[in-house]
Amino acid sequence: MSLPFPKLTAEEAASHIENGEAIGFSGFTPAGAPKAIPFAIAARAEAAHRRGEPFKIGVLTGASAGPSLDGALAKADAISFRTPYQSNPDLRARINAGDTRFFDMHLSMLPQAVRYGFLGPIDWAVLEASDVTAGGGVVLTSSVGAAPTFGRKAKRVLIELNRKHPPTLLGMHDIFEPADPPHRGEIPIFHASDRIGSPIMQVDPAHIVGIVETDRNDETGGYDEPTPETETIGNLVAEFLAAEIAAHRLPSFVPIQSGVGNVGNAVLGALGSNARIPQFEMYTEVLQDAVVDLIYSGRVKFASTCALTLSPPALERIYSDLKFFRPRIVMRPQEISNHPEVIRRLGLISINTAIEVDLFGNVNSTHIMGRQMMNGIGGSGDFTRNAYLSIFTCPSAAKGGKISTVVPLVSHADHSEHSVQVIVTEQGIADLRGRSPHERAELIIENCAHPEFRDDLHAYLRMVKSGHTPQTLRAAFAFHCHFLDTGDMHGVDWESLLPQKATR
Amino acid sequence: MSLPFPKLTAEEAASHIENGEAIGFSGFTPAGAPKAIPFAIAARAEAAHRRGEPFKIGVLTGASAGPSLDGALAKADAISFRTPYQSNPDLRARINAGDTRFFDMHLSMLPQAVRYGFLGPIDWAVLEASDVTAGGGVVLTSSVGAAPTFGRKAKRVLIELNRKHPPTLLGMHDIFEPADPPHRGEIPIFHASDRIGSPIMQVDPAHIVGIVETDRNDETGGYDEPTPETETIGNLVAEFLAAEIAAHRLPSFVPIQSGVGNVGNAVLGALGSNARIPQFEMYTEVLQDAVVDLIYSGRVKFASTCALTLSPPALERIYSDLKFFRPRIVMRPQEISNHPEVIRRLGLISINTAIEVDLFGNVNSTHIMGRQMMNGIGGSGDFTRNAYLSIFTCPSAAKGGKISTVVPLVSHADHSEHSVQVIVTEQGIADLRGRSPHERAELIIENCAHPEFRDDLHAYLRMVKSGHTPQTLRAAFAFHCHFLDTGDMHGVDWESLLPQKATR
Repeated sequence: MSLPFPKLTAEEAASHIENGEAIGFSGFTPAGAPKAIPFAIAARAEAAHRRGEPFKIGVLTGASAGPSLDGALAKADAISFRTPYQSNPDLRARINAGDTRFFDMHLSMLPQAVRYGFLGPIDWAVLEASDVTAGGGVVLTSSVGAAPTFGRKAKRVLIELNRKHPPTLLGMHDIFEPADPPHRGEIPIFHASDRIGSPIMQVDPAHIVGIVETDRNDETGGYDEPTPETETIGNLVAEFLAAEIAAHRLPSFVPIQSGVGNVGNAVLGALGSNARIPQFEMYTEVLQDAVVDLIYSGRVKFASTCALTLSPPALERIYSDLKFFRPRIVMRPQEISNHPEVIRRLGLISINTAIEVDLFGNVNSTHIMGRQMMNGIGGSGDFTRNAYLSIFTCPSAAKGGKISTVVPLVSHADHSEHSVQVIVTEQGIADLRGRSPHERAELIIENCAHPEFRDDLHAYLRMVKSGHTPQTLRAAFAFHCHFLDTGDMHGVDWESLLPQKATR
Repeated sequence: MSLPFPKLTAEEAASHIENGEAIGFSGFTPAGAPKAIPFAIAARAEAAHRRGEPFKIGVLTGASAGPSLDGALAKADAISFRTPYQSNPDLRARINAGDTRFFDMHLSMLPQAVRYGFLGPIDWAVLEASDVTAGGGVVLTSSVGAAPTFGRKAKRVLIELNRKHPPTLLGMHDIFEPADPPHRGEIPIFHASDRIGSPIMQVDPAHIVGIVETDRNDETGGYDEPTPETETIGNLVAEFLAAEIAAHRLPSFVPIQSGVGNVGNAVLGALGSNARIPQFEMYTEVLQDAVVDLIYSGRVKFASTCALTLSPPALERIYSDLKFFRPRIVMRPQEISNHPEVIRRLGLISINTAIEVDLFGNVNSTHIMGRQMMNGIGGSGDFTRNAYLSIFTCPSAAKGGKISTVVPLVSHADHSEHSVQVIVTEQGIADLRGRSPHERAELIIENCAHPEFRDDLHAYLRMVKSGHTPQTLRAAFAFHCHFLDTGDMHGVDWESLLPQKATR
């Protein structure tokens, strides 16, 4: 039985895309992102540029995309506008050079912003599928992201049918798109494992311009082996949660959200191996390698996620045993995996990684030295603000010890003191709940800062005695400025920064 | 029929309170707060201090309280710890002097933080009531705040029965306390007017130590008459929303949340009188004088609130016509009036006031010059983060024109660029949706900054060409530091702040 849609090469598909159009791609960090069509669009842009013609498109995704999408299009300087998240080095360079306008967003908000028309019209949806039906049904692959919204709102649709993802993925996704105000109802998820939607997303078949068949692996990176530092952080988090359970401040079974990356992987490993932590569920946006083992071992009972951001061998383990994993994993749209309503109701423990934290509990998740965009805020704000208990982790030093990640004031504030409850570095834990700014500063210096920087941080606090928040604006970025001058945060002359007037 | 609870004087009630205890008071901004008992506790503290004995208590409320509570206790230096919000000058001075530890919180999170045990045990609930039943039923007065949670979790309860509030207030409140994870269900509010709970809150009658009868007005301030500046801001907001409706980016009937204060009052007046704005509902935390007129005129169909923060004459208008107002107003606990789930579902338009905004869309709602606490974040974060459309208003200049409220970088970031969509000053509107930091900065300078400071802000932007966010840390607080040195933000020498290295 053949499908009533034209079979296209990637180049034929790309030939439909015009300069200035906005494209919504499936994919999330970067599982399930199209690869062949964006690569061909990049080639088309390069050819146009060689002819002296303009060719740039707007790129919307679920979250980050890989080298064939963000990388190729960035190298071709073919992205005019990008939202909501990215992590590709070539694209990052374009953004920080001002070639590409980037709009950093809470991931849960992207789909509704598209539906509300806040980001303009979507000309195309380009979706990676594991199966397609004649009626416009699309079985997605290793993520859901914002694909259901892009598919419904886009004027036209292109599909990459990727044989690397088996059509038996049918049943791994739970597609649910809320109605918009004033007609929105509840998001009826009451347990991490609840299914509320359809296993298949739907687009208007009249909008499908064609299908490109491919056979390509997801462009996920691997994970590094745990270091002593990440293992220490992981164990500290596990011990802290075990103590909270013992103190009856934590019901045993609230689900875990964990940010992606090496620290997140180490934390999950530590939670899995700590005998005082009961079997648990995950309600998260990204599933990483450590969780596959924990599901096999029974330590993780169920995992709700937006994406399977797994190394190719870990993904293959799931695909080769779908019978086992189908009742234990569900993939949801980012609007649902990250929905404030569900996060607050289920009462998640959120564990995310900071770039830097300050003495008063504010967290920077996005910017280097206040200026350079790293990746974006991603889902960290969705989870942190609404969690039962919000935790940020980071090593206490970076750049071979030259940077203190504990600073007087974060150079960009993504999570304010009001949402950040616990900070963990390899040095220890600062539990900020119910603490005034003065108390927080002492806790963070003594428990979390690297010993080499503690005297500096105390010197900063000594600059002022009064005020609810003992902040001295003229010296708040002394660490950062000294690093920009010398390549090292060590050696700030705090005395020289003392205010000339007592009131300052 | 008499109640089975001892009738006490305020002094007798206060005599039960011991040094070091934590008290949860009813009341919200500051409607419905007890007045006689806290005043008597302050006298008890002063007497203890005269005897050389320590006497300080922990004070939890819904939001701000008035002179008889925060004011009297602060004057007596009787508050060791205060959360989640305050606005009393005497207490503010104590906090900024370091005498009182203040923990600034999102108001929606206070009740669950109390239930989760994150803020320690609550020894006493002191509740203002308009009526009490023998079975422990308490009809609250002009607010709900966190009273239901304090009443349930406190070891003992004292009640102020205030005759100024008629017992016929029964039916104006909707008391609903969600279960805690992992047993929490949905908050079943689908329209601003939905009632989901009980008209009366309940405490264990065995916990009631006694009742103090009083006859005292709420200690609400009045509102100033609109100025040309606040009227301009109000009209700009109304015109902006009318244009959004015309552009089909806004369903006609999403409810309005408006922050309290003179700007908020002016905005509501402008919305009410703009013929292009349809009849609307409010889902807000504080009802202010302007809304009473709008309900009478039919412009506001229904108002859901946590508190009636009205001038005494406006409150009297409601109390003298409860038959008219009972089907048009409901008072809810702050956990529900400010609940992310409901705010996102209903799709509110949030309108709040900033202390300062920066070029990239971050907003400071709490701190003066990064150090002095003003009032607290209140509900602004609950509403802004989850709104359909989030708006911040502020006059472009303060202190007689010496302060630009548009600054390179906010001295404290309470709402990050990710949550702030529209900024309005009397100069104009900056619509930040989908705009990169460079674009936002240009929009904010040209449309919102005071003309006298635009050259300075452009000079700041010119310091750096690269970067996603064109921030120059060494000069980010130049406005603030110059003000602290000279009492005026005019006259910064931007040239002298230029980096010595191109990379900075």
